[in-house]
Amino acid sequence: MKIAYLGPEASFTQLAASQIFENETLVPHSSILDCFNAVKNGEVKKAVVPLENSIEGTVSMTLDYLYDFKNISIEAEVVMPIAHHLLVNKENPEFDTVISHPQALAQCYHSLDKNFKDYTRKDFSSTAAAAKYVSENPDKKIAAIANSYAANLYDLKILKKNIHDFEQNHTRFIVISLTKNSLKLKHKLIGEKTSLIITLPEDHAGGLHQVLSVFAWRKMNLSKIESRTLKTGLGNYFFYINVANEWHPILSENALAELRSIGAEVRFLGHYEEYLVKD
Amino acid sequence: MKIAYLGPEASFTQLAASQIFENETLVPHSSILDCFNAVKNGEVKKAVVPLENSIEGTVSMTLDYLYDFKNISIEAEVVMPIAHHLLVNKENPEFDTVISHPQALAQCYHSLDKNFKDYTRKDFSSTAAAAKYVSENPDKKIAAIANSYAANLYDLKILKKNIHDFEQNHTRFIVISLTKNSLKLKHKLIGEKTSLIITLPEDHAGGLHQVLSVFAWRKMNLSKIESRTLKTGLGNYFFYINVANEWHPILSENALAELRSIGAEVRFLGHYEEYLVKD
Repeated sequence: MKIAYLGPEASFTQLAASQIFENETLVPHSSILDCFNAVKNGEVKKAVVPLENSIEGTVSMTLDYLYDFKNISIEAEVVMPIAHHLLVNKENPEFDTVISHPQALAQCYHSLDKNFKDYTRKDFSSTAAAAKYVSENPDKKIAAIANSYAANLYDLKILKKNIHDFEQNHTRFIVISLTKNSLKLKHKLIGEKTSLIITLPEDHAGGLHQVLSVFAWRKMNLSKIESRTLKTGLGNYFFYINVANEWHPILSENALAELRSIGAEVRFLGHYEEYLVKD
Repeated sequence: MKIAYLGPEASFTQLAASQIFENETLVPHSSILDCFNAVKNGEVKKAVVPLENSIEGTVSMTLDYLYDFKNISIEAEVVMPIAHHLLVNKENPEFDTVISHPQALAQCYHSLDKNFKDYTRKDFSSTAAAAKYVSENPDKKIAAIANSYAANLYDLKILKKNIHDFEQNHTRFIVISLTKNSLKLKHKLIGEKTSLIITLPEDHAGGLHQVLSVFAWRKMNLSKIESRTLKTGLGNYFFYINVANEWHPILSENALAELRSIGAEVRFLGHYEEYLVKD
């Protein structure tokens, strides 16, 4: 079975995807949009894309495509700790410049300031591309910030492990597909949730409050809520909402029916499980 | 007066910053975090950073730093339409590869498929870096997707104007500083709003609903709401909330007092105006 993931090879998304799908063919795609299109067009069965706090893509793009691609559902969510390492060329470990994706450089900001204060920092399109560049240019005095998978793939030396500033740095990934399945994995189960996309009939005071009332009195806990501007113009929003824990067949379905009856458009993206994988 | 912006030179943020601060010294910074630090350390008076739907940075990072940097407030919000153009070298306009930031390539996805289907697409760390690369490599058959500012700066030919897929593509930028001022601009005023960061005492069912009730019965309309995971670990959240329109001295202050009395932590990021600038 072919699985798309947000590349390039050795990206954090691949690191997650390779743990979710150990025996499948993983196909790198160069953007989140390409991953969605590959699923839509049937080139792959599923795709793994970052949803939150990602180093390579932004939350907002994934949310926007979940809105745009009406037939795509979520099968599972996977949480992975993000560990950044400082990698150098084995032949020439000297460096005066550190290269990586701007978000990786930002996540190692204080650590770099403390240990490599006057070294130049340079942006690359991804952490993996930076690692590849170090491996291909032994004549240059450069180091890359990337993950352990990239260190292995490009045969680089890990000069300093875990140079990220915050211990609690996780990225959430989702598995998307055209089926309405919920994926079962052998990894550590940390929860279950339901994702909805809700569009209000018009932007009026308390509209969101009315929507949340529907969940609140039923004790349905919202674990994530995010408003996104619709592409139809400024001032129009949709809401991406996660309801934590089980999806009660009567209570939950009634909640959706009530939302629709007040004129809200509700899309059910899936009820699925959340797993923790290793970095 | 020195103003930091998210660079590099010719980024969309510079395009916005140059319209907000016409006669000030604009200083590029390589990450959103660098912009926040420059304000905090007094190296600059203010900074312009992307907040929503940006091509260069992510919403989430700006929100996280607004949470982290306790003394930084918002002085104004600026909305700018995003227009992407296809730029080629004047000496060698031939190309078989299109380079740009992955989000810019994604925003021109259908247009590229229609007009330049079999051309290779390659990621760059920013649209401006891609434009610069085209100008410096007339021997290579490449075109860049970037803005008109980059076309001028790097003396490139605009081969195809407005190749983005959606007309309604805007980016929101905020002006941040250590003062509690509200900035008055001569651009088109499109609204006023108040930004708050609210942290709930604990993650309990209906907690967010209780918070929103405080605003709802007072007819205070929320124009943006976003939950973000705290760096203290998964499952802890803060909420970034925008209240539209005027900030009523009694109603609004009472709302905040009530929120604090139920144990929520509330930070007032500023009451400020929203302007529209040109692309």
